[in-house]
Amino acid sequence: MGVDAKYGFAFGRMEKGRRNLISDVPGVRVGHCTLHEGDVHTGVTALIPHGGDVFCDKCVAAAHVINGFGKSAGLVQVMELGVIETPLLFTNTLSVGAAWDALARHMLEENADIGLSAGTVNPVVFECNDSFLNDIRGLHVGREHVRLALDCAAEDFDEGAVGAGAGMSCYGLKGGIGSASRVFSLYGKSHTLGALLLTNFGTLRDLTVCGDGVGERMYQKRRSASEPDKGSVIIALATDAPLSSRQLLRAAKRAQSGLAYTGTISSHGSGEIALAFTTANRLPHDAPDGPVRVEQLFENDMDVIFRAVAECVSESVISSMLHASRTVGRAGNMRESLKTLLEEGI
Amino acid sequence: MGVDAKYGFAFGRMEKGRRNLISDVPGVRVGHCTLHEGDVHTGVTALIPHGGDVFCDKCVAAAHVINGFGKSAGLVQVMELGVIETPLLFTNTLSVGAAWDALARHMLEENADIGLSAGTVNPVVFECNDSFLNDIRGLHVGREHVRLALDCAAEDFDEGAVGAGAGMSCYGLKGGIGSASRVFSLYGKSHTLGALLLTNFGTLRDLTVCGDGVGERMYQKRRSASEPDKGSVIIALATDAPLSSRQLLRAAKRAQSGLAYTGTISSHGSGEIALAFTTANRLPHDAPDGPVRVEQLFENDMDVIFRAVAECVSESVISSMLHASRTVGRAGNMRESLKTLLEEGI
Amino acid sequence: MGVDAKYGFAFGRMEKGRRNLISDVPGVRVGHCTLHEGDVHTGVTALIPHGGDVFCDKCVAAAHVINGFGKSAGLVQVMELGVIETPLLFTNTLSVGAAWDALARHMLEENADIGLSAGTVNPVVFECNDSFLNDIRGLHVGREHVRLALDCAAEDFDEGAVGAGAGMSCYGLKGGIGSASRVFSLYGKSHTLGALLLTNFGTLRDLTVCGDGVGERMYQKRRSASEPDKGSVIIALATDAPLSSRQLLRAAKRAQSGLAYTGTISSHGSGEIALAFTTANRLPHDAPDGPVRVEQLFENDMDVIFRAVAECVSESVISSMLHASRTVGRAGNMRESLKTLLEEGI
Amino acid sequence: MGVDAKYGFAFGRMEKGRRNLISDVPGVRVGHCTLHEGDVHTGVTALIPHGGDVFCDKCVAAAHVINGFGKSAGLVQVMELGVIETPLLFTNTLSVGAAWDALARHMLEENADIGLSAGTVNPVVFECNDSFLNDIRGLHVGREHVRLALDCAAEDFDEGAVGAGAGMSCYGLKGGIGSASRVFSLYGKSHTLGALLLTNFGTLRDLTVCGDGVGERMYQKRRSASEPDKGSVIIALATDAPLSSRQLLRAAKRAQSGLAYTGTISSHGSGEIALAFTTANRLPHDAPDGPVRVEQLFENDMDVIFRAVAECVSESVISSMLHASRTVGRAGNMRESLKTLLEEGI
Repeated sequence: MGVDAKYGFAFGRMEKGRRNLISDVPGVRVGHCTLHEGDVHTGVTALIPHGGDVFCDKCVAAAHVINGFGKSAGLVQVMELGVIETPLLFTNTLSVGAAWDALARHMLEENADIGLSAGTVNPVVFECNDSFLNDIRGLHVGREHVRLALDCAAEDFDEGAVGAGAGMSCYGLKGGIGSASRVFSLYGKSHTLGALLLTNFGTLRDLTVCGDGVGERMYQKRRSASEPDKGSVIIALATDAPLSSRQLLRAAKRAQSGLAYTGTISSHGSGEIALAFTTANRLPHDAPDGPVRVEQLFENDMDVIFRAVAECVSESVISSMLHASRTVGRAGNMRESLKTLLEEGI
Repeated sequence: MGVDAKYGFAFGRMEKGRRNLISDVPGVRVGHCTLHEGDVHTGVTALIPHGGDVFCDKCVAAAHVINGFGKSAGLVQVMELGVIETPLLFTNTLSVGAAWDALARHMLEENADIGLSAGTVNPVVFECNDSFLNDIRGLHVGREHVRLALDCAAEDFDEGAVGAGAGMSCYGLKGGIGSASRVFSLYGKSHTLGALLLTNFGTLRDLTVCGDGVGERMYQKRRSASEPDKGSVIIALATDAPLSSRQLLRAAKRAQSGLAYTGTISSHGSGEIALAFTTANRLPHDAPDGPVRVEQLFENDMDVIFRAVAECVSESVISSMLHASRTVGRAGNMRESLKTLLEEGI
Repeated sequence: MGVDAKYGFAFGRMEKGRRNLISDVPGVRVGHCTLHEGDVHTGVTALIPHGGDVFCDKCVAAAHVINGFGKSAGLVQVMELGVIETPLLFTNTLSVGAAWDALARHMLEENADIGLSAGTVNPVVFECNDSFLNDIRGLHVGREHVRLALDCAAEDFDEGAVGAGAGMSCYGLKGGIGSASRVFSLYGKSHTLGALLLTNFGTLRDLTVCGDGVGERMYQKRRSASEPDKGSVIIALATDAPLSSRQLLRAAKRAQSGLAYTGTISSHGSGEIALAFTTANRLPHDAPDGPVRVEQLFENDMDVIFRAVAECVSESVISSMLHASRTVGRAGNMRESLKTLLEEGI
Repeated sequence: MGVDAKYGFAFGRMEKGRRNLISDVPGVRVGHCTLHEGDVHTGVTALIPHGGDVFCDKCVAAAHVINGFGKSAGLVQVMELGVIETPLLFTNTLSVGAAWDALARHMLEENADIGLSAGTVNPVVFECNDSFLNDIRGLHVGREHVRLALDCAAEDFDEGAVGAGAGMSCYGLKGGIGSASRVFSLYGKSHTLGALLLTNFGTLRDLTVCGDGVGERMYQKRRSASEPDKGSVIIALATDAPLSSRQLLRAAKRAQSGLAYTGTISSHGSGEIALAFTTANRLPHDAPDGPVRVEQLFENDMDVIFRAVAECVSESVISSMLHASRTVGRAGNMRESLKTLLEEGI
């Protein structure tokens, strides 16, 4: 059941997918490896784009930097070639190197030609800074955690303080992993677009849920000290609608609007990056016999995509918070759960 | 008096400037030439960046394309050199050429060296498509209208269906020219940031005012046919805070968030372009004796700028609509006034 | 006959097209209107992308800014939507507005729906600054000259000091219009790529022809004063190979390499802009029944495109100079002809 | 002694620095850790921007992607914030993760506040694919090699098949590390600009040295099979001239011209990335009392910077090859030395 049903929120007017998760896009799977122990509250989340071999059968994709105060790796090549060729990883900021290394090793194992006849591979690794709750200096993410996240990827997956979201904060409360999806019809066929977010941004007073300034109310009631607006948010968008990489870039840019619906100004300290891919257009690694055929929307039909992005992104932000439990982390730092606060009637 | 005071709206929590107009930034003036006659509902708006000779004393600036379905001219050079060197013009889409030509002629008259020893000049002309209300094919904007707009530029100026805003539509109602400003303190000094918008975008159902979905209510009540979301919006941002062109670009990007606060998805058909400049950093046309000194914010202090942008942009959208009267235009096409509808209690 | 045959130059190793002009790409036509009289040395060049109605049947395209010190209009929309929908115009810097206005009027005449049911139109106008030889302040380009250039467009056209090239300077000598083409095979079919350049850049000492530093020799021999490196260069690239807009952007970026082969550093004062389009992928203005199908190269096959761009661009620069006669212009300013100097054995 | 003196090559006409290395820019140091053993021919090169604490005293910087077929990490943040805050690392493609992790650990050790009060850190790691000569699948670069490269950084350093350049190929011959510098005067003061390149691109036939097509001659003479043009090239540019990040971006873009002087088309398979920084403008990590003051060039004075970039880059390419010895690597794959071939009179 979507967060809107439970709390009476309405994130737009489009129809939701069956699970209201990014995995409503056929083939997309998500897996988590979560570390919650002592001062360690971090982890890895893996998104697998489709059921085949992503290296040999690449998804058309695009990446957009909303605010580039971030360390995500792999975007240069996505922007140039318009494809992803690995699963997408999410983790904490200082573990980008370890996760990159682990994903490269995974790809080497799966594809014996990489580094020999097949060129190299472009791992895509996203990050947010969970140092408020997590002992990020401890560098607790290792190869085995990436492997676990990849191995357990499934169509059903948890949201909230799990995987890379274990130690994240959003609008001064507990954030983490959120997801949503929308279905729509194009040229007589049904299509799905879904979002997966790692939320770690915003300041409490700005939090707005479907137009309601709940953050300001909570701020006034709790008289909490105003905290600097730091963090980051990563937005992965998947669809089975036929889009070109240029169109996916246009779609990814609407993530900023979806974030803004929840009240944020996309602050200086927030690394905000969106990557969109489609499973409908695949590019082969090995040479075909002729030109590659790509299907794309008639451009005037893009608005349904843009609306789906904006709705999914705003719902995913709130969903990440509603699924996350109150967490006490490093140095006794604590983040309340939005769900708990709402249930307490604030 | 700001629109928020009149209608009880609160666009954020920052302090407003004295006029709540972009001209609260010292030196900035705005002038309109409005054509309302028969099928003609169009015009020209001119923004003059400071009281001196802008060609000789250029303002540091940046331009950002939110959605590039638009014909604005002059952005390539702003993006490369990080300055504006002319007033900014706003008009209808098909009059970009005429306005460009008129502004070039104006600059030639003012600066006898242009085209001889001084290189050429980069006119900046923005546009939105007012063809719903205006006989845009008639190409009614001429040299004299640009001149009139430039000549009447003042610190006090009208908002609503004036100047370039004469024939514009916003969220299915009457749009046009809107403005707002915010004041804030940095390093012990008071600074101002202001926005001037030409609004011509959105579909009624999306209209949201300070979190309130008034558009959906109006849509349900009036059972109006849903119209395609076409149009455009231009956002000019001025400040006297010391920003580099890179920082102004970051600021300009937050215009998308401000637009989103009013409900839009930044639709395919909407050319959305933001230009930001500062009067605090000027670059000379003629060679100085040594390097140019520029002051910029310590980057962690940017959030006050971002918040001012987001607040000014969202308020300017609604202000443009609240100041615009119901207009009947070309072919009997009509746009209601948001102000009237609100007063009628819808 | 190509310039290489006449002077023994070899611009790369690919096969040339029949005319060695951009019009070797089927459907592409070029027309000039040239003004050479008294202090007036300027004009208009028009490139028509294909034989049909370009507004209704748009060419997939991309634009790249090498150095944005320029006033070209129309690029924002090309970058967003990946198409051109008008002929391309070239003229002098201060005539951009007049040419834009004239092209818009032409499109309105040809398409009765523009500005009514069909949205507006995006004229693309390029420019270089010919003020050394031309009375640019006189604004001598008018609507009739644009019309004449469009009307006389043909597969056979002149290079050198014609059309927009009438008053241009290149490497301190006479520049103007240059063109070249290359043919190549892809997936068993023959394809063509061509370039059309408006050259107005560089300083004499840098001029290099196929590796030979002829400019430095001329500079030493003539003991001419070193002139500032100002100007600009516009590069239009056409092909009938199946490329996506992303791939055309990659192709356009190689124009900088082609320019560099002739010795330039792409100086500060030189507005350098490249636009590439393909006639092989067309996007309809009116809604089709389903998604649009686009063919693109398997990415590993792009090098033949890149090489064709680099060869065509470097040859076009030199061709523009070899076809241009010594010109005496405004205020007695003069530009020698490279052809004459070479024939004199310098 | 520069390569030009030894072989009679003249890379432009500007004055060279004392060492003709990037370390002619005061404070810049370079260190290598080289692995040449069996099938392992790879390594790490570290560039340290200045003698102080780079994290606390960041250098203004910019990054430009010429061709984004590459996996370099850290560019997103450089592009947004316009600074570098770590040494720059260079290594092989599949070791980006390991090098990133090692550099992050190094920064954590040096700065006890990172990950606590000071936010995180943005390691910059560049790569080229050395799999032709190196067992890249073996992932032979570890933490200790990064540490060794950092520790041995000095003003005097080797070029050629050392550090990250151990296994690289350029124009079908042995490539690796190359460097050059230029000195020039601005506003009465002497300044230096230098380049450090990791060269791994190009196909033999294209190789051009100062206009001389030596590659084509070697190709004809050796009748070697034409190899696909794969690889990459990384260009780091340092200067002590006062430039803004916008101006450094403009400078970085001229790297493509410098590469083109050596004959390349910047092929599809070549990840080509340029990063430029200045030691003249530093941004503090901790909050200052007021705005930050930056000095920048009067824009018309940029050409001396652009020329220095183009000259340094082209010379560095050839220097990397002239300093590299014939290398036999993985699977018996071999690269000849340009120096040897030139000395043999080819």
